[in-house]
Amino acid sequence: MTSDAPRRLESFLEGAWRSGAGEGKPLAHAATGDIHARIGAEGLDLAAALQWGREVGGERLRALTIHERALMLKAVGLKLMEMKEEFYEENFATGATRKDGWIDIDGGIGTMLSFASKARRELPNARVLPEGDVEPLSRDSTFSAQHILTPLTGIAVHINAFNFPVWGMLEKIAPALIAGMPCLVKPASQTAYLTERVTRRILEMDILPEGALQLLSGSAGDMLDHVTGQDVVTFTGSAATGQRLRAHPAIIANATRFTMEADSLNATILGEDAVPGSPEFELFVKEVVREMTVKAGQKCTAIRRILVPKALEDAVAAAISDRLAQTPIGLPDDERARMSALVALDERDAVRAKVAEICSEAEILWGDPDKVTLVSGDADRGAFISPVLMRAGDPMGARAPHEVEAFGPVATLMAYESAEDAVALARKGKGSLVSSLFTNDTRLAGEIVTGLAPFHGRVLIGNRTSAKTSTGHGSPLAPLVHGGPGRAGGGEEMGGMRGVTHFMQRTAIQGAPDFLSAVTGVWSEGARVREDTHPFRKSLSELRLGDRVVTDTREITEADVEHFATFTGDTFYAHMDSAAARVNPFFEDRVAHGYLIVSFAAGLFVSPEPGPVLANYGIDNLRFLTPVYFGDSLGVVLTCKAINPREGSEHGEVRWDCVVRNQKGEAVAMYDVLTMVAKNWPEAASL
Amino acid sequence: MTSDAPRRLESFLEGAWRSGAGEGKPLAHAATGDIHARIGAEGLDLAAALQWGREVGGERLRALTIHERALMLKAVGLKLMEMKEEFYEENFATGATRKDGWIDIDGGIGTMLSFASKARRELPNARVLPEGDVEPLSRDSTFSAQHILTPLTGIAVHINAFNFPVWGMLEKIAPALIAGMPCLVKPASQTAYLTERVTRRILEMDILPEGALQLLSGSAGDMLDHVTGQDVVTFTGSAATGQRLRAHPAIIANATRFTMEADSLNATILGEDAVPGSPEFELFVKEVVREMTVKAGQKCTAIRRILVPKALEDAVAAAISDRLAQTPIGLPDDERARMSALVALDERDAVRAKVAEICSEAEILWGDPDKVTLVSGDADRGAFISPVLMRAGDPMGARAPHEVEAFGPVATLMAYESAEDAVALARKGKGSLVSSLFTNDTRLAGEIVTGLAPFHGRVLIGNRTSAKTSTGHGSPLAPLVHGGPGRAGGGEEMGGMRGVTHFMQRTAIQGAPDFLSAVTGVWSEGARVREDTHPFRKSLSELRLGDRVVTDTREITEADVEHFATFTGDTFYAHMDSAAARVNPFFEDRVAHGYLIVSFAAGLFVSPEPGPVLANYGIDNLRFLTPVYFGDSLGVVLTCKAINPREGSEHGEVRWDCVVRNQKGEAVAMYDVLTMVAKNWPEAASL
Repeated sequence: MTSDAPRRLESFLEGAWRSGAGEGKPLAHAATGDIHARIGAEGLDLAAALQWGREVGGERLRALTIHERALMLKAVGLKLMEMKEEFYEENFATGATRKDGWIDIDGGIGTMLSFASKARRELPNARVLPEGDVEPLSRDSTFSAQHILTPLTGIAVHINAFNFPVWGMLEKIAPALIAGMPCLVKPASQTAYLTERVTRRILEMDILPEGALQLLSGSAGDMLDHVTGQDVVTFTGSAATGQRLRAHPAIIANATRFTMEADSLNATILGEDAVPGSPEFELFVKEVVREMTVKAGQKCTAIRRILVPKALEDAVAAAISDRLAQTPIGLPDDERARMSALVALDERDAVRAKVAEICSEAEILWGDPDKVTLVSGDADRGAFISPVLMRAGDPMGARAPHEVEAFGPVATLMAYESAEDAVALARKGKGSLVSSLFTNDTRLAGEIVTGLAPFHGRVLIGNRTSAKTSTGHGSPLAPLVHGGPGRAGGGEEMGGMRGVTHFMQRTAIQGAPDFLSAVTGVWSEGARVREDTHPFRKSLSELRLGDRVVTDTREITEADVEHFATFTGDTFYAHMDSAAARVNPFFEDRVAHGYLIVSFAAGLFVSPEPGPVLANYGIDNLRFLTPVYFGDSLGVVLTCKAINPREGSEHGEVRWDCVVRNQKGEAVAMYDVLTMVAKNWPEAASL
Repeated sequence: MTSDAPRRLESFLEGAWRSGAGEGKPLAHAATGDIHARIGAEGLDLAAALQWGREVGGERLRALTIHERALMLKAVGLKLMEMKEEFYEENFATGATRKDGWIDIDGGIGTMLSFASKARRELPNARVLPEGDVEPLSRDSTFSAQHILTPLTGIAVHINAFNFPVWGMLEKIAPALIAGMPCLVKPASQTAYLTERVTRRILEMDILPEGALQLLSGSAGDMLDHVTGQDVVTFTGSAATGQRLRAHPAIIANATRFTMEADSLNATILGEDAVPGSPEFELFVKEVVREMTVKAGQKCTAIRRILVPKALEDAVAAAISDRLAQTPIGLPDDERARMSALVALDERDAVRAKVAEICSEAEILWGDPDKVTLVSGDADRGAFISPVLMRAGDPMGARAPHEVEAFGPVATLMAYESAEDAVALARKGKGSLVSSLFTNDTRLAGEIVTGLAPFHGRVLIGNRTSAKTSTGHGSPLAPLVHGGPGRAGGGEEMGGMRGVTHFMQRTAIQGAPDFLSAVTGVWSEGARVREDTHPFRKSLSELRLGDRVVTDTREITEADVEHFATFTGDTFYAHMDSAAARVNPFFEDRVAHGYLIVSFAAGLFVSPEPGPVLANYGIDNLRFLTPVYFGDSLGVVLTCKAINPREGSEHGEVRWDCVVRNQKGEAVAMYDVLTMVAKNWPEAASL
């Protein structure tokens, strides 16, 4: 795949592929040292690119609904999956084995597809997202509020790390594009050729609207000088660079939303119960070695600190060393190799320097940073390095093993005295992306994990039960938050639909309910209603928010309750036994079943003949507010609250506000009834 | 109230009231110019104070549950309310009238009480908050995840503005203390005497645990050099100061959570329909004048830009000028005065300078910044200033009226051509805390508000319906987000229970369900279960997560469905008419009612005799997943999912996971059943 003449990488800016001035900086193949590509963006107008993205891409994306955007990403993801072999092939140049590539390539595409699917399942098919309940601000329902989320009108600038050229791009553009924000991706130069290739394939598909995606291959130059308060800048990489960007004058002056995921010194903890021979001990050793060697340890989530009970320290050291000794290292496309090279020679120099620094407070137990045995490849040309296991003798007094990160196959073993001690040591990392704990003791897990939580974005517990299904310490997942406090950058990415909201502005809207509805698309108490045809006779094309039926009333008799109890078998004492019911703190006498109330309510509000309402698929937030006694008379008010037409389907979801009241006007039960309603119906009301 | 010898303000740090070195800087009474107090914190050890708060206060607060913390704040709030006259009295020294003081004092205490009440209603009575649903990560329920929120282990440092010495403190410490974070409050010097007084009263109550609340009266000195990644810094005040703090080296280096609410140039828009004589025109004019004059315009949410249709510009100018002319200005305790002085003479100088700057692109329509008519007081000694209404002739081309904030009774009128134009003008503020729109046209409101939303944290719509109940443009409310993007600082405060989470770390916990439960307190599928005594026979003292009943099964017959239909009146065609049901895209034949399924399920799972289960108060997230046909046989598995004992009550809430399956094992319905259960029950299982 590596062609003879190195590829000149281009940037896709303002709708065209553009090459920077000059021949570009050479990028070497990680394992062979051959020049693989050239990169440079000198002279490109980045201010104009940002503005083009905001104007052209922003407007086109915002014209689509959330589901339309998600379906677009699904199409992109499925096509990328088909062409992934091309990406695997080029991925070898980054020093990644095929297995390493799986995390980046399949992992990245899978993340995009996961976002596309979750967005359609969990978010409405709308442009404005209502968030949370309507907040009544007046007793008479003339003034209420609701929060909404709308896409920021700027551009999302994603500054990514070299270690995941595909995942890094896709996990960030997926939530941004679903939110409705255009993106400009700036991959780290070392592996930008793979990001460039994937971007070309995405753009060739012609699925994304114009302006939705731009790529900068090369230095960011003055780009950040031009960010505004409506832009979002995300950064993944070293803590030092991240801190520099966070303090950038334009980001500070505009309060530009800035998210940072920095390499952190993630710890793993072995529980005291997990002695040699236990499944947890084996899982722990395997996980540590995997985290040290996958991607040659170049993961911001990799395990850097290995915390073990004092009594088990030697056993762990021996077991890890043993496994490291059995890890063949070689060329990335050599199937024998379980680990390959670092991304570049200068990264190897950096790792060696950091190991030396850590060694001021630790000793090397296994491996030599200056010497590596290879099954293939040339250690003088490729950035190969041996795994290095260190041990800190005084972990509580040490600083370097907790704060100096060697971004390679390097970790430090430390012994702890007690569970409290283990938590204190983990916290000495000053905030990490992830931590893990291996134990089969749930009580111990409760104690340690609660102690770890405030310092971590993710905590994984490993034990025998999840041995086969655990996704492992190092894997961020689309539905879970990725990012940690402090040293890890204080950012938050992904986390399911939370990740989409990171690219949206949350706004509290206040006003008379009719006006709220006009903005949020959600009917609330006090907004206008229409009581003409029974709303179950209306298809989505005719139904409007506020369409309502007010039912007749029905008296609840003792006979009804007795009958319902006999019929259903629900003879709970509060319905059957007056004396027992009176003792109950909530009731004054026998009460009707809650299930009887909702069943009778349905009997009152349904329009039974065939029509556009296809099914009741559920109920939300049902609360029984006032007990119903014999002789009470109930009526229902059912009002159309939200309409959510499904993209590419003949029907959609309609949410109905349902209030059951007694003869005194007291609310007896309140809930949302969820129905499927046809988009069109031949015999519907207006015909 | 103003004593002869000015009070020397003290700081409450490390458990004692401490005076800074020297006699302190004099603070003048805003309206009389008399020296009211002296302030200074020279020589106080702020690093030690932060550490003391983290250690002493943090540990004590985290030992309490959310509800215990909330009840504590309720007690503080109720006592403050009783002693508020003392605060009103001293508040005159800030230049605030009694009405101005209402926003600060009653508003602040009310906000604290609102948080205390909402927290008990909306959050569980726990130390760790589960957030969102359990996320299954394996098909066989051996590996799952859930997000939790835990209090950060640092200290919340609140740097507040001079304009709301009471509200500013209380609206920030309420969510922080509920979250479990200790606070250090640093009020702006100008009005710190009032914050100091309120803090003294709070500490005298002896309700808050030691270390939960500290006060710094005086300069922040080197305090921020000592913040960590577990601390939170909130800032309210000028954009310039906020930007300086945001870029502070320690905040950058530690990724310290930093929230900023800056003065912004908030706009209000008059709709084209709101012509003179309409209720909306009157409301608009009244609101503008109120926002200009309340607190003498010293509110970060005050209206600075008045956007009106070109055709109505003169009418608006006349109406506002007219009302301004009828606004008596005088001493804060003079009941005739509707507006009083700015906080200090140098603030008046600043306002005059800013007015001059705006006047480079605007003209003064009403008022003279250098001349004011008083009903009482002395304009040479007090910081009195006249309201000033300006007009920008070319609003789209102007910069100063959109970006230069005069923090006083000052606003600029601007004419717009179209709704789109109005939105574009509002956006020229580059992000504001709030905007408002006065119209009686819901369609127009939908268009304009959606356009305003990405640039604002709050948008208020005013019309005749909410005329009496609206809380107004300028009032942040506890349940609503306060904060805006860009110029407004990019922060987010309050917003109901969201505000509490700003002081907590969100962590994704992964593991086998048993281990998740041990951390989150929520049972999920795959976690251990116990099937001994029927769980309805167990009081809270005996009930454990995972306690379960697996019921017998019951066949659903045609007769059951016919009978249920007749009994309830729910004769929806899908239950009654085979031919019609078959046409329905979801059903293959007549199906049982969803309400019949849940009624029969209750019949199967209840334990009817009197016992610790007191009531079923609701159902959450009910979904019907598989249609039930005649002859299907249903069984229920009911499992204890979450236990929430109520503070100071004899019972608590128990949430049950309820799954109804058919004879093929398919889930027919899934939902949470919500019950009230007694904490103790004499005849319960174990006795």
